[in-house]
Amino acid sequence: MLIGKVIGSVWATQKESGMENIKLLIVQPIDSKGHPLIAADRIGAGVGEQVLVTRGTPAHTVWGEQNAPIDAAIVGIVDSLEINE
Amino acid sequence: MLIGKVIGSVWATQKESGMENIKLLIVQPIDSKGHPLIAADRIGAGVGEQVLVTRGTPAHTVWGEQNAPIDAAIVGIVDSLEINE
Amino acid sequence: MLIGKVIGSVWATQKESGMENIKLLIVQPIDSKGHPLIAADRIGAGVGEQVLVTRGTPAHTVWGEQNAPIDAAIVGIVDSLEINE
Amino acid sequence: MLIGKVIGSVWATQKESGMENIKLLIVQPIDSKGHPLIAADRIGAGVGEQVLVTRGTPAHTVWGEQNAPIDAAIVGIVDSLEINE
Amino acid sequence: MLIGKVIGSVWATQKESGMENIKLLIVQPIDSKGHPLIAADRIGAGVGEQVLVTRGTPAHTVWGEQNAPIDAAIVGIVDSLEINE
Repeated sequence: MLIGKVIGSVWATQKESGMENIKLLIVQPIDSKGHPLIAADRIGAGVGEQVLVTRGTPAHTVWGEQNAPIDAAIVGIVDSLEINE
Repeated sequence: MLIGKVIGSVWATQKESGMENIKLLIVQPIDSKGHPLIAADRIGAGVGEQVLVTRGTPAHTVWGEQNAPIDAAIVGIVDSLEINE
Repeated sequence: MLIGKVIGSVWATQKESGMENIKLLIVQPIDSKGHPLIAADRIGAGVGEQVLVTRGTPAHTVWGEQNAPIDAAIVGIVDSLEINE
Repeated sequence: MLIGKVIGSVWATQKESGMENIKLLIVQPIDSKGHPLIAADRIGAGVGEQVLVTRGTPAHTVWGEQNAPIDAAIVGIVDSLEINE
Repeated sequence: MLIGKVIGSVWATQKESGMENIKLLIVQPIDSKGHPLIAADRIGAGVGEQVLVTRGTPAHTVWGEQNAPIDAAIVGIVDSLEINE
């Protein structure tokens, strides 16, 4: 998984039917300058929050809707991180 | 998922049978200089439009045709983005 | 797989139900400056230890819980490495 | 998918049984300096040709042989590209 | 797939049960400076040899043991490469 900060939202009217009613958030991985990614969210994450994102088939499997075309999903809102380098 | 801009099209006559009748668009991810990718499209995206792309097995699964050899699909045409960094 | 060093932990209360009781560790791949990743652990790895991490669907499959939304898992604690470049 | 140029071939005698009779070509992605990849080919692509490559599980699934250990396959020979940046 | 050079081995006693008896080799992809990866081997590759590595679910599927937590496997020992850039 990766940790990222929610920095925004995306809206699309013309889309695959499986995308209906899926909230799409823009997430900036905390450890990289480029490449924000778009993740589906049903936990209720908001802009500015640190979130845990799962990608690939595991994200699609957990979402549980066969025709939901998602390859990234927010699976937790981070309470705290402890780093001891 | 990622967001990219449609910058062109690809045509191939000699191909896997599962590729028949699949429209292939060239998509430049909005946040990276290199590596445009090729995505299947059945939503009707056009050159210049911002699109939402799903990759890997979720893209193949959503396409719904077992022998369609695709690993990236356009799943939405972006209406708007809201970013609050 | 990749080898990384455990550098910390992550806690999240608001999360997918499948995430309950899963210990999440922050792992810094030994060969790259950026991009630490978050991996599920049930072997008992601790901060400072070198671990073997499996990613993607194989990690999800091995975890064995269909609705555990994980895409990276610690699958071993490294005893020793032998490198002959 | 990605587009690349076929720049060579690979031969291996000692291999997984599922690799028998699979033609392996070296493909240089057209948009990146490093990282050529090895792709299975059954379409008959030749050195110098531009090809369309599918990767990951979709490539394995389309190949249709359960024990063929491939994670990249050539799925088309490019006739033409049209780019309007 | 990718081609890499075997540069060493990894040992782990504390590990997922599915990892028992799996030989783990350190492989340096021939075309990139960083990021060696760890691949399972049952073909008998040795240090210094050039090998063909398959990654992701295809590697797990080919290995054939459902609970073997591997995401990379050596699937051939390279005899020869022919490159015509």
